[in-house]
Amino acid sequence: MTRARILITSGPTRQYLDPVRYLTNASSGRMGAALAQAALDLGHEVVIVSGPVSVTYPAAARVVDVVTTDEMLRVAGEWFLQCDGAIGAAAPCDYMPKQVSDQKLSKNGSPLQLELIETPDVIATLGQSKRDDQWVVGFALETDDRRFRAIVKLEKKHCDLIVSNGPEAIDSADNHVELLDQQGDVIETISGDKPHVASRLIHHINQRLIANRKTPHQ
Amino acid sequence: MTRARILITSGPTRQYLDPVRYLTNASSGRMGAALAQAALDLGHEVVIVSGPVSVTYPAAARVVDVVTTDEMLRVAGEWFLQCDGAIGAAAPCDYMPKQVSDQKLSKNGSPLQLELIETPDVIATLGQSKRDDQWVVGFALETDDRRFRAIVKLEKKHCDLIVSNGPEAIDSADNHVELLDQQGDVIETISGDKPHVASRLIHHINQRLIANRKTPHQ
Repeated sequence: MTRARILITSGPTRQYLDPVRYLTNASSGRMGAALAQAALDLGHEVVIVSGPVSVTYPAAARVVDVVTTDEMLRVAGEWFLQCDGAIGAAAPCDYMPKQVSDQKLSKNGSPLQLELIETPDVIATLGQSKRDDQWVVGFALETDDRRFRAIVKLEKKHCDLIVSNGPEAIDSADNHVELLDQQGDVIETISGDKPHVASRLIHHINQRLIANRKTPHQ
Repeated sequence: MTRARILITSGPTRQYLDPVRYLTNASSGRMGAALAQAALDLGHEVVIVSGPVSVTYPAAARVVDVVTTDEMLRVAGEWFLQCDGAIGAAAPCDYMPKQVSDQKLSKNGSPLQLELIETPDVIATLGQSKRDDQWVVGFALETDDRRFRAIVKLEKKHCDLIVSNGPEAIDSADNHVELLDQQGDVIETISGDKPHVASRLIHHINQRLIANRKTPHQ
């Protein structure tokens, strides 16, 4: 079989307002950990770029820790050059305060007006930069119009496949996802615990994006 | 000795913007866990009201889980009625979005204007409501003018003692604190790992607030 080196982004990132407070989400890193295990089980090599999580990643994976979305973008970008493909299982914090205070903001009884700007999109950036022999699989987490928005993201992020799921997946043991191809067609609807979902996703990634490649990285 | 029932608030709380994103801080719950252990070691009973953490609390403590600051206030307020004193080791998220979206906010390339309002102050509320036979110990985490701001908080929150520390304490194994009495005088400056700091703090709480009380809860 073809052995690939797979980059997996995982977990949340944080964007600080001041030295204490930050914006984030409840991504646990469990989907990233399950994908890593499933990929290792098929004999692939795995590099995980992870935000702060308490999940334990497989010992056989190389784990690189990051905190902010900028860091995740930079570190994932560097590792992607040496990988065959990337799976964006992280939930990077996608807004950051326009101004960050280096002192803890003191409460004064008045509302705090916060201007948030978008952070760079990690998977879209990898998707745009990918070579012909590389592939990118994204995740789309939406509360409404899921399939439509997933297809929009697939195109915008230059993904080869996209996994559509909902907010109930966050910090949960289970997941319910649709895997969509570049035409926006549903390849498989998968429900179950994250190891099961991960195993099915890696199966399809392996079949469609790895096994038929002629010039793998290794 | 006098056996007391002590309420400890611990960990961070979360304030959601939408079903996915929230504002929080990196409080780990380790100081709360260390205080609980030190209080149990002296024979006291401990109730911990904790935000989402991955730390393990002592098995002998009763742990009540909460997510938001409002919940922490409500649950801690209920338990405080049955306790002799409270230690505010939590770092409740002190701002919340004025408007919370029930759908995930979609990125559209424009900045997001967020109006944040102050959440209720958990320890100040307990301090205001305390009976003559109850006591409250607060924590003040400040980056600047630490001692001055700690004394202001001590008074504002109706605390019997206040612990002043800095942001380097957050999510760290160690801590460096000053314990101040109601006159704003430094009782002790304590440095070291959190179990050591906790043990010294509980020693002073025990001596000043518990041992000399005539009408303990139990």
